[in-house]
Amino acid sequence: MNPKIGVVSVGDELLEGMILDRNSNYVARELTKIGCEIIRVVQVRDKIEEIAEVVSDLLKISNILIISGGLGPTEDDLTREGVAKALRRKLVMDEKILAKLEEKLKDHGLLCLENVKKQAEIIEGAEILENTVGTAPGQFVKHEGKMIFILPGPPVELIPMFERYVLPRVEEMIHEKYTTRIYRFIGIKEATLEEKLKDFLYSDGRIKVSTMIDTYVGPTIRLTVRNEEIWRLERMEKMIKERVGEYLYNVGDKRIDELMVERMLKEGITISIAESCTGGLVASTLVNFPGVSKIFKGGVIVYSNESKAEVLGVDRKTLEKFGAVSERTAMEMASNVREKFKSEIGIGVTGIAGPTGGTSEKPIGLVFFAIDREGQVQTRRERFHGDRNTIRMRAVYSVFDLLRKVL
Amino acid sequence: MNPKIGVVSVGDELLEGMILDRNSNYVARELTKIGCEIIRVVQVRDKIEEIAEVVSDLLKISNILIISGGLGPTEDDLTREGVAKALRRKLVMDEKILAKLEEKLKDHGLLCLENVKKQAEIIEGAEILENTVGTAPGQFVKHEGKMIFILPGPPVELIPMFERYVLPRVEEMIHEKYTTRIYRFIGIKEATLEEKLKDFLYSDGRIKVSTMIDTYVGPTIRLTVRNEEIWRLERMEKMIKERVGEYLYNVGDKRIDELMVERMLKEGITISIAESCTGGLVASTLVNFPGVSKIFKGGVIVYSNESKAEVLGVDRKTLEKFGAVSERTAMEMASNVREKFKSEIGIGVTGIAGPTGGTSEKPIGLVFFAIDREGQVQTRRERFHGDRNTIRMRAVYSVFDLLRKVL
Repeated sequence: MNPKIGVVSVGDELLEGMILDRNSNYVARELTKIGCEIIRVVQVRDKIEEIAEVVSDLLKISNILIISGGLGPTEDDLTREGVAKALRRKLVMDEKILAKLEEKLKDHGLLCLENVKKQAEIIEGAEILENTVGTAPGQFVKHEGKMIFILPGPPVELIPMFERYVLPRVEEMIHEKYTTRIYRFIGIKEATLEEKLKDFLYSDGRIKVSTMIDTYVGPTIRLTVRNEEIWRLERMEKMIKERVGEYLYNVGDKRIDELMVERMLKEGITISIAESCTGGLVASTLVNFPGVSKIFKGGVIVYSNESKAEVLGVDRKTLEKFGAVSERTAMEMASNVREKFKSEIGIGVTGIAGPTGGTSEKPIGLVFFAIDREGQVQTRRERFHGDRNTIRMRAVYSVFDLLRKVL
Repeated sequence: MNPKIGVVSVGDELLEGMILDRNSNYVARELTKIGCEIIRVVQVRDKIEEIAEVVSDLLKISNILIISGGLGPTEDDLTREGVAKALRRKLVMDEKILAKLEEKLKDHGLLCLENVKKQAEIIEGAEILENTVGTAPGQFVKHEGKMIFILPGPPVELIPMFERYVLPRVEEMIHEKYTTRIYRFIGIKEATLEEKLKDFLYSDGRIKVSTMIDTYVGPTIRLTVRNEEIWRLERMEKMIKERVGEYLYNVGDKRIDELMVERMLKEGITISIAESCTGGLVASTLVNFPGVSKIFKGGVIVYSNESKAEVLGVDRKTLEKFGAVSERTAMEMASNVREKFKSEIGIGVTGIAGPTGGTSEKPIGLVFFAIDREGQVQTRRERFHGDRNTIRMRAVYSVFDLLRKVL
């Protein structure tokens, strides 16, 4: 049996709905990957009694607890006290940590106030987990055969500490090692995918199958199998590739935008973009990736007919005859932006994102794409469903799918 | 005493970290606003025993439970069974719902399969809550003086049902009505804000004060007070406005981008944008808002020196003498894009988002802004901290702050 995990996030701001609990989500995902069972995730307020109650309850049903938040210097930070109470242990001042804290603060020209000293308090018998980013150290306690990790709440502090201290120690507890692979699809609906695979996808009881949607991109399938039986996974992977390989853009963690940017960077292929309904979203998705300035030459957002003609040089006759939302306009946008920015690839996107502006002939969600690679032009017509933002985001990923076809 | 609330989200996909629990966050935020105390948020797997256990435990410490997810038609959807078990009630088939389900499916040309019928099962004595978006109805049970709401998991179904059924019924339970106001700041650090207000912000024990950061925008202060004592809140508001009014851009829910777009739409002020480091993010933030085509004329993303000169007509001498990241370049970008798109306002943004490209003179995070309104140009220089994405997002909201100054 692999370990059962309880995850606890501490903080009034969570219970008041002021921030999303991204820590639990991260911890749960990473521990699931290595074969743990996450049996409960709990958010609890900054109250000693309540923290102690949750910790005691979860210790009854899990082998390992991951607790985050409430380790700071303010009066509201009571995780240390709550966990100590649950374990019936004392808090002791750690002189080494105190000295370090005082030094850190002095570097910033600050005095070490009473409440800051709280961060040097350690649950009796706990091991100190060093925090290289912030001031509050984490703690690790073994208690009646169970493991308890206490980590700071800010994700920039929690993530490196989780990777350094939690993952390796939990991994040691995993008796059955598992392999997980994620299959990422684009251009196919989840129902269609399921239909095409249903006769074998759930046929092997030794493989755990989860399907989900990567919002705006497409369906994903996650297969998990014990390492000794990886041949089962590979047998299934072969069948998946045979049946729906053309929609499978990656086996792994990376999404299509990251993959395509990597490919263009590697091959030094330059690109420019002319956007209408996506209004800069394709460009800003590209610019998310560092180093992209080597290949991204620039873009134009031509939101009106006037700017399509005047700024980008789309033929007024094209706009009159076919309309701004048409294959021909997309083609001219792609070719003209490519010429303007002197890039190898030019892309044009024009469509109707809604919520108004649709007609029976050109409904909301209709988007035309064109890609011009050194004079060779390909086009695509899509009809997306959903609200304004969904339509725009789907259009963005469709651009990357189009790139996949020409790269 | 206002009601104590327990929130439960059901679904393996939550515990596996595959999706973020946005429902709990939404429910907690909305109920906190009207004066409820959210005492626990729990995520539990699709297992009857575990759901029943969580429900029983939370009923001991809360007056109202809001449970979401696990109402669908698949074998994994076991919330009905779990809650029924906790309450020791039976599930009964509701013939009216069944008939409706069959009709809905027939419209889509589908047969009503056995597992779909599960959605017509109701906890004995429960009231049915109509779902106008999806197929699974919600349920409402009164049990030993407590109220239990069961809602479907997809947010598009949950939110309207929460607003229609949960909010008004919970509001009736609120004996002490509260007023909450949110004060939104930009251009000031949280520590500075606290420093300027600390002598009175926490001085009135009858006002609940929460401060937090609206990521990338700035600090917010939330004040909550009983309706009878709203004069206390107003007294404090007056002092806040006196001390830090220049940084206060809104009292309410709306963020600065939405506010500025509304103002431009109302006054019919047209705008165009030239972006470098933000790479289309300012434009796409504008285009998030429906109807923006009335005022947004378009934009240019000029990521290289070459395109700044060739596409946007920035003087090559300016680029040579002052550099691409300079006040002068931002000014020319703003004025030239305004001319190109014939808009009332033109905006230029140029900076270094990192993670490389910084120098001691022009470090990572340095961003210049210019805004040209009918020939009147204003500029701003900012030094942002954080990673690439943080710097870019902060730059986006800084543009809206600049707009605030000229609108």
